[in-house]
Amino acid sequence: MTEPRYDVIAIGNAVVDVIASCKEELITELQLNRGGMTLVDEARADELYDAMPPAKEISGGSAANTLAGLSTLGLQCAFIGQVADDQLGKVFRHDMRATGIDFDTEAREGEPATGRVLIFVTPDGERTMNTFLGAGQYLPAAALDEDLIASASILYLEGYLWDPEEPRRAMRRAIDVAKKAGRRIAFTASESFVIERHGDDFRAMIEDGVIDILFVNESELATLTGEDDFEKGFEMIAPKVPVLVATRSEKGAVACAQGERAEVLAEPIERVIDTTGAGDQFAAGFLSGFAKGAPLDVCLKRGAIAAAEVISHYGPRPEADMKKLMEEKL
Amino acid sequence: MTEPRYDVIAIGNAVVDVIASCKEELITELQLNRGGMTLVDEARADELYDAMPPAKEISGGSAANTLAGLSTLGLQCAFIGQVADDQLGKVFRHDMRATGIDFDTEAREGEPATGRVLIFVTPDGERTMNTFLGAGQYLPAAALDEDLIASASILYLEGYLWDPEEPRRAMRRAIDVAKKAGRRIAFTASESFVIERHGDDFRAMIEDGVIDILFVNESELATLTGEDDFEKGFEMIAPKVPVLVATRSEKGAVACAQGERAEVLAEPIERVIDTTGAGDQFAAGFLSGFAKGAPLDVCLKRGAIAAAEVISHYGPRPEADMKKLMEEKL
Repeated sequence: MTEPRYDVIAIGNAVVDVIASCKEELITELQLNRGGMTLVDEARADELYDAMPPAKEISGGSAANTLAGLSTLGLQCAFIGQVADDQLGKVFRHDMRATGIDFDTEAREGEPATGRVLIFVTPDGERTMNTFLGAGQYLPAAALDEDLIASASILYLEGYLWDPEEPRRAMRRAIDVAKKAGRRIAFTASESFVIERHGDDFRAMIEDGVIDILFVNESELATLTGEDDFEKGFEMIAPKVPVLVATRSEKGAVACAQGERAEVLAEPIERVIDTTGAGDQFAAGFLSGFAKGAPLDVCLKRGAIAAAEVISHYGPRPEADMKKLMEEKL
Repeated sequence: MTEPRYDVIAIGNAVVDVIASCKEELITELQLNRGGMTLVDEARADELYDAMPPAKEISGGSAANTLAGLSTLGLQCAFIGQVADDQLGKVFRHDMRATGIDFDTEAREGEPATGRVLIFVTPDGERTMNTFLGAGQYLPAAALDEDLIASASILYLEGYLWDPEEPRRAMRRAIDVAKKAGRRIAFTASESFVIERHGDDFRAMIEDGVIDILFVNESELATLTGEDDFEKGFEMIAPKVPVLVATRSEKGAVACAQGERAEVLAEPIERVIDTTGAGDQFAAGFLSGFAKGAPLDVCLKRGAIAAAEVISHYGPRPEADMKKLMEEKL
């Protein structure tokens, strides 16, 4: 086993977030799934965009956001994801590279366009996401650079991308490559609907010891286990994965690694502006500690600090000097 | 003279701002014109974008920003400007319409793309702009809806767009149409380099009584008059235009209308985040009062409030509930 070249390589959605603040009533009017993520086709995306207040465009994508956090925290990162050969694809690629992340998956010619996520942010800071996957759903296994995957300590996978068939096949192939190279697999469940559709896959991967680090939130844990009681659900999964991290929004987070359990409270902040990216940055903070061998409670605290930063402003990626912030807060 | 259908119609650049915060050193390294606006070709735009930190995309354009402010303040507005038939063009159009502005200029097929402004924001909040005009420089006189222009109380023109030839011709035509319909012409000088190149045009328009409301900042006034002393320069122009508004950044602003003079201090704010749009929103605040017949000092105060709001966050358009803000602060 050679020395890894990257700390983390991620496979995920390559999308640009289209973020608008809106009144509560618009969520009802447009019949949106408040606080959730819903996959939409292009026609529905156009319809929702027409109804959307003025917006900002900021690169997003769950795993890509986590990588941006990790890179900002000084880790060596690479990304695999599918953009189209269009303006939003160029924006996404620019923002990844400008964050210091290697991203060389070739753009896909023709339709559909680069994916986008229409995000409606209500006055309480909650985000309601509507995702048109666009080119992202066609990420082919052939686009994987297997040497690249084998060269990273951790392969980080995004549950959202398990839904479309081609990326799912690509991710399965990537898992094989990483496992053969003796690397670790981190997986974020992303959303309950993904588990509703692919729970059997996930449960099988957990049982088979494929997943080394699993990130879930409360409702994903409940969907995964069929158990509404958080503690019971946590105890069902914890013995089956080397590292389990469960985030609980304002209630903080719990982790268990090799039988050791730790908890963290949510980091206090003045005002929640936009919760987009909270889970992604929690994962970044946690992994940034974990990859460097930090104790479990420190990893959790780093997660909480990173999540608090990102919900204090619009957009899913850190804006503060994260290394400095970690030094100040830890 | 029929009752106007719009309060303000503007002709301006249709561009998307690409905004990144950056370290002071990057400005020197890239040899940027700190605090100014520089026109760049596509190759230079690409070069600068490659060197730019991760960015947000937010619709911009000087006159378009002013209209967004005016619309948010309850005025009926329409816009004329040239986007290409591409993703950024759609973003620009969406944001105008979602702000309540009528914008029906047809998108232009083929190259170049929709214009963009690469904005580097240094830690002091100062913005350094690099504009690739793109499709905007091909706005043809034929794209003008003359009935539309005749139907607005005020025709608002942006100096930036005086530089490329086709839009300049279109603006001259628009002036004729508006004048014939008995409407008023508001003009913002935009930038000293525009006056350096087209000062003779502007001075002739001022002498000929074409401009009814003129917006300048200190350095534009100096370039226009050749007089470095602010007061002397102001007194040179004030008698020649019905309304003169001169903004002076943190020193506030001065206006003169039909011999009456008024001043306003800059509105205090906690921290300057990004000065992009300060002049545009000052103009919006001022005109929103002026169009409704408010006293000159109130118009200035409205300008100062609108400018203070926009420099408190990233992006050139208001994010606060501006009507409410005006009520609170006035």
